[in-house]
Amino acid sequence: MKLFYSPGACSLGIHVILEETGKPYEGVVVSLKEQAQLRPEFLEVNPKHKVPTLQRDDGTVVTEWPAIALALAGTAPEAKLWPTAVEDQVRCLEMTDYVIGTVHPQAFSRLFAPGRFAPSEGDHPKVLEVGKSNAEKYFATIEKGWKGGDWVLPSGYSVADAALFFVEFWWVKRMGHQLPPKLAAHYERMLARPAVQRALKAEGLEA
Amino acid sequence: MKLFYSPGACSLGIHVILEETGKPYEGVVVSLKEQAQLRPEFLEVNPKHKVPTLQRDDGTVVTEWPAIALALAGTAPEAKLWPTAVEDQVRCLEMTDYVIGTVHPQAFSRLFAPGRFAPSEGDHPKVLEVGKSNAEKYFATIEKGWKGGDWVLPSGYSVADAALFFVEFWWVKRMGHQLPPKLAAHYERMLARPAVQRALKAEGLEA
Repeated sequence: MKLFYSPGACSLGIHVILEETGKPYEGVVVSLKEQAQLRPEFLEVNPKHKVPTLQRDDGTVVTEWPAIALALAGTAPEAKLWPTAVEDQVRCLEMTDYVIGTVHPQAFSRLFAPGRFAPSEGDHPKVLEVGKSNAEKYFATIEKGWKGGDWVLPSGYSVADAALFFVEFWWVKRMGHQLPPKLAAHYERMLARPAVQRALKAEGLEA
Repeated sequence: MKLFYSPGACSLGIHVILEETGKPYEGVVVSLKEQAQLRPEFLEVNPKHKVPTLQRDDGTVVTEWPAIALALAGTAPEAKLWPTAVEDQVRCLEMTDYVIGTVHPQAFSRLFAPGRFAPSEGDHPKVLEVGKSNAEKYFATIEKGWKGGDWVLPSGYSVADAALFFVEFWWVKRMGHQLPPKLAAHYERMLARPAVQRALKAEGLEA
């Protein structure tokens, strides 16, 4: 398998899941900073020009974070990364999609790329302010609704933890902010996992 | 069950799925136009103040489009709305999340609410232009990658069709644009489904 990723991007969460599966893979850097996702050789792999992108050994390509997470979980059932009970799957998707479809695009995309929201540079401080306030609100919502113990799901560790991890990482390491207590503890537990340490190291990131 | 929806919003896709299950439910209007999602009585149900929101008969609440879709599919296995093979589930999530996480927020949110992107009104035409060009690009990508026959998945109708439907509906009915040929045919097939007709009628919308 090949994982196309950009160091420190949302693909970090998929990198963690890949490491959790224990399966062999090759990491291919597609640097968003250098706009490498728009190069013809990558567009041939994923015309949506997004990371993460997974290419499997049979050549088939899987895109979209939750779909890649499910595909990878399926390669290693013994790692139990995707819950088996439908109700747990529902809660797993609920957290994963909140991160992928709301926390990332409505908070962090504003913080990382305000120009994609407001064409006028003078408006960027306002966009950044909304991004920060959204992130605080979203993390508070997750904290308040926390049903798990150590992990997002009471049934145990899952891909939802890897989804939550990359936005926690962004908030703490890239932005220098503090998480609310339950999420801060979750973030520390994630950092203690060997798979997370390997993924961070592979991407050249410090915990 | 109770479905909290706003007429013609992305909750329309969930409304379709509910009608496909054939299970009894109560529709509760939370008008986004009137900002009803911010009213205290709705915030108590879903602090994320988003539609669709599903409240089940045991009082539990499910949020996030793909999670609600999975929960509803689980209530009516005979309707086969969620595929059983993992590979089909992966492709089902891939389309669903592309619609929910990219087509909706990166194209239609710009078209429907440019002010949420650019604080300066003078920039709104630029935001609208990007939204339109994104929508065209995304629909072209889906058209080009179409692997299904009548439906998104070669294995048959699924929740992914309901996800694709609501953005097709927006593009054709709200924006007055044309879809590429395979998507136009898919849209027509969706409109012919009794469940889709019932959902549209329930929301006071014309096909």
